[in-house]
Amino acid sequence: MEQSKIPQATAKRLPLYYRFLNNLQHQGKNRVSSKELSEAVKVDSATIRRDFSYFGALGKKGYGYNVEYLLGFFRKTLDQDELTEVALVGVGNLGTAFLKYNFLKNNNTKIVMAFDADESKVGMDFGGIPVYHIDELAEHVGNVKVAILTIPATEADNIAEKLVEHGIEGILNFTPARITVPDHIRVHHIDLAVELQALVYFLKHYPLKKDD
Amino acid sequence: MEQSKIPQATAKRLPLYYRFLNNLQHQGKNRVSSKELSEAVKVDSATIRRDFSYFGALGKKGYGYNVEYLLGFFRKTLDQDELTEVALVGVGNLGTAFLKYNFLKNNNTKIVMAFDADESKVGMDFGGIPVYHIDELAEHVGNVKVAILTIPATEADNIAEKLVEHGIEGILNFTPARITVPDHIRVHHIDLAVELQALVYFLKHYPLKKDD
Repeated sequence: MEQSKIPQATAKRLPLYYRFLNNLQHQGKNRVSSKELSEAVKVDSATIRRDFSYFGALGKKGYGYNVEYLLGFFRKTLDQDELTEVALVGVGNLGTAFLKYNFLKNNNTKIVMAFDADESKVGMDFGGIPVYHIDELAEHVGNVKVAILTIPATEADNIAEKLVEHGIEGILNFTPARITVPDHIRVHHIDLAVELQALVYFLKHYPLKKDD
Repeated sequence: MEQSKIPQATAKRLPLYYRFLNNLQHQGKNRVSSKELSEAVKVDSATIRRDFSYFGALGKKGYGYNVEYLLGFFRKTLDQDELTEVALVGVGNLGTAFLKYNFLKNNNTKIVMAFDADESKVGMDFGGIPVYHIDELAEHVGNVKVAILTIPATEADNIAEKLVEHGIEGILNFTPARITVPDHIRVHHIDLAVELQALVYFLKHYPLKKDD
């Protein structure tokens, strides 16, 4: 397949494009210019054109891109038709935010179970998502391969090891800790403090120009 | 200054490097190899060496990098000595997670106030951080230039406009909505659903090799 040739930076933007195009189609729109797309997803249009060229979608001058064609391509590429089940580990404030977040609205990932070490949270139910004790991972995790980690940093390595032991292959790590896992486990790390500091840093050193 | 020459991808990793080096110094370590750094921050060592070369820090073979020198440089670069005050807008589950997160532990950003539209939340206090009504933005925001947005997507554009009106220049947007702001406002967008979907996508299409 061609997909292995798509650069990772491009691949990362696919879900974004998909979501916007999906909205367009719901609004009954058949075509979109790279300029419109650019304004909506906040990616510059040169980047969009380059991204799209990787999957053979070439916009026509004065017409733009065909929404349905792009959606068809993205759907196939993103495996939108196949539901990926996800486990959430850590039902604190951040974890609860995830449990209440409607992921299915725009894509086919779904949190199907949650785990916590706190007995008072075990047995809770968030719109059909049950909370189990972390010690019951083996009994419940089944074929789930993806986990969201929203636990205290001090527990991160310990719990990550347990998750990998029970078949988890991808971890979305929201703890401040950088976790250590075997090489074949994919970890995406989102550190809230680092994100905030990066914004502040850019604000100070890369001020944007006032265009008006 | 040289800083404008640092690529954005490099700049984004600075807070990460800073945090790890800071920990090393607390442990009494004077030097670090790019391999150690690489394992700790999960960035490959070639990238680290290239990043460091941009700010004139050249590691010595068999010695590595001098921790204190690097920290001195990063501190200056990241303006660690200058506290940046931040406002949080939206005291739901995600907002509460931020309010309880100890940002100051590792860097000089601090949430100093929060806003919500819900009267029942107004007047609350999170370890010294007061919650005001969003309609009282003008009275309280003062010189704060950075805001974290953790409100429902449907409110995002409306509230973002208000924030910009009252002097906010940088927004860390955690809503699923991509907000529209004037060109000189810097927005970093972290969409939880997109992050999750990107992880799933990479997991399926870019499987990592089992090294053991």
